[in-house]
Amino acid sequence: MLINIQQACSLLREHDHIVILAHQKPDGDTLGSCFALLSALEALGKTARVESPDGFPARYAFLCGGYAPKEFSPEFVVSADVASLQLLGDLAAVYGSRVDLCIDHHKSNELFAAHTLLDAEAPAASQIVYHMVRELGAELTPPIANALFTGISTDTGCFKYDNVTPLTHRVAAALIEAGAEHGAINKLMFDTKSKGRIAVEGMLLDNLEYYFDDQCAVLTVYPDTPDRYGVNEDELDGLSALPRRIEGVKAGVTIREKEDGSKRISLRTGDGLDASTICSRLGGGGHKNAAGCTIHASREEAKRQILAEIWKELEMWRYERNPMH
Amino acid sequence: MLINIQQACSLLREHDHIVILAHQKPDGDTLGSCFALLSALEALGKTARVESPDGFPARYAFLCGGYAPKEFSPEFVVSADVASLQLLGDLAAVYGSRVDLCIDHHKSNELFAAHTLLDAEAPAASQIVYHMVRELGAELTPPIANALFTGISTDTGCFKYDNVTPLTHRVAAALIEAGAEHGAINKLMFDTKSKGRIAVEGMLLDNLEYYFDDQCAVLTVYPDTPDRYGVNEDELDGLSALPRRIEGVKAGVTIREKEDGSKRISLRTGDGLDASTICSRLGGGGHKNAAGCTIHASREEAKRQILAEIWKELEMWRYERNPMH
Repeated sequence: MLINIQQACSLLREHDHIVILAHQKPDGDTLGSCFALLSALEALGKTARVESPDGFPARYAFLCGGYAPKEFSPEFVVSADVASLQLLGDLAAVYGSRVDLCIDHHKSNELFAAHTLLDAEAPAASQIVYHMVRELGAELTPPIANALFTGISTDTGCFKYDNVTPLTHRVAAALIEAGAEHGAINKLMFDTKSKGRIAVEGMLLDNLEYYFDDQCAVLTVYPDTPDRYGVNEDELDGLSALPRRIEGVKAGVTIREKEDGSKRISLRTGDGLDASTICSRLGGGGHKNAAGCTIHASREEAKRQILAEIWKELEMWRYERNPMH
Repeated sequence: MLINIQQACSLLREHDHIVILAHQKPDGDTLGSCFALLSALEALGKTARVESPDGFPARYAFLCGGYAPKEFSPEFVVSADVASLQLLGDLAAVYGSRVDLCIDHHKSNELFAAHTLLDAEAPAASQIVYHMVRELGAELTPPIANALFTGISTDTGCFKYDNVTPLTHRVAAALIEAGAEHGAINKLMFDTKSKGRIAVEGMLLDNLEYYFDDQCAVLTVYPDTPDRYGVNEDELDGLSALPRRIEGVKAGVTIREKEDGSKRISLRTGDGLDASTICSRLGGGGHKNAAGCTIHASREEAKRQILAEIWKELEMWRYERNPMH
């Protein structure tokens, strides 16, 4: 059942002993939403805790470092920024059938909860939680402002993406006024990379391959890359966004060779080229601008397959735009 | 003479045949300010033109591509985002002694104009020009909104830096409402790099050198680098920001070897380390977090000199924080 902010806040006011759930591989938005809501509920005298299926990454220590969840028997279960049960990971077995309130901004939300507060226009769940904190009448303290700012900033690429609306900027203004340490948070989230990550990025960019008059760029990550550069999986996050940033590149491909020999392909596209169409022909799927698939083949054969599909789409794209040539 | 927005707008209303000056090596803020002001003045029926000492870079074609300045004899001269006469480059000889109104946000403004509208709290001159457009009563058209958004976004690193205020976000909201194509502008300004730039970045990051327990990272650009990678000077902009982004690096050094054998050093610091102090000991200067100097010495000797000064400051920094060790 879809509900509005007032209804969601009424549900929270009526209950106590509230568990707040983050999604798998937690990011700034799910953690920002969860910890802002936790602080607001505690300020209203509620007993509450946050649970994450994958713990609390060190990267977000400024939000949740040293956090120790309270022990209690839950009466009410809320999830924040969780689009499907699957994204609850191991917590799905514990809470999957009894999520009372789902707060989300994904159009694809699977409506798995008893009540869903969905705002697909919001670029971040944290923007929805900001309005809940106001509606609940909790004070917008600096820790709450920091948590919400982190969520909004990380989910919008620091206000860079098209999903930002005037409201997003106005909420950011209010959060800074409430004490959000915006400069420090942005520096930590966007301008801080580990030595290993920098070295990997350098090596990968130095070894990019270009195809089809530079309309396609391919970046390959080998199984021994993490070990060789002493980086963990977290530090490899976001690599697949790199090739699409190159001027003129319509299709950015990242090939990740796995230990079992399979090749995981991430495809980012722009200029109307459909990544989802391309990857679905190879048994994968995704969105218009970001999709993926797994190919069980040799290095050269996997590359050949994905490039062949990209080539077809590039030709189709060119034809549709200029059918006379 | 320092004046306020109302006074500045009165001056503009009282005059016609207005020349608007951008600064050397024009960036998004000076061009955004100039072209927004140009459109607003023309909408009010004025004759005006923009002049730039270094032309209009292709990177900003969406703001000023194909711009042809009107010919007329100037009655009133305005500069936007220009902190000193020197920054007018070749135009200083033409207009230096007769700038009537200087619109700026640099604390260091040298007050070279007859009237100066200075707001050192504004992270971009474009934020000041936004308020001028409102005060002048000109319509906030999509082209004006695009120009001002470009200025604000580029001077704040896409709302990333500490210089952003709540007002900055509120102005951004108003500009998006007025039709600023924020997503496209941000993608072009922040997520689009040439193939050559990407290759140079990869090579440089792959060849970073670390000193003093990784507290200092050094990146070296050789005289043949631009040619070898087929990049121009513009494409090398901003390289000196790279080493400081590495986790734990307090001093990021970029050494640019010039054709004449001299070494241009750019130093970026954080965590309270003073870049200006370090560079001034080598005959240079700058700000607390960004400074530079030129060393006439061999590659190894230049590196030794800058590293020695950084080491002294790092030791001092450590001592001041923990005098008992």
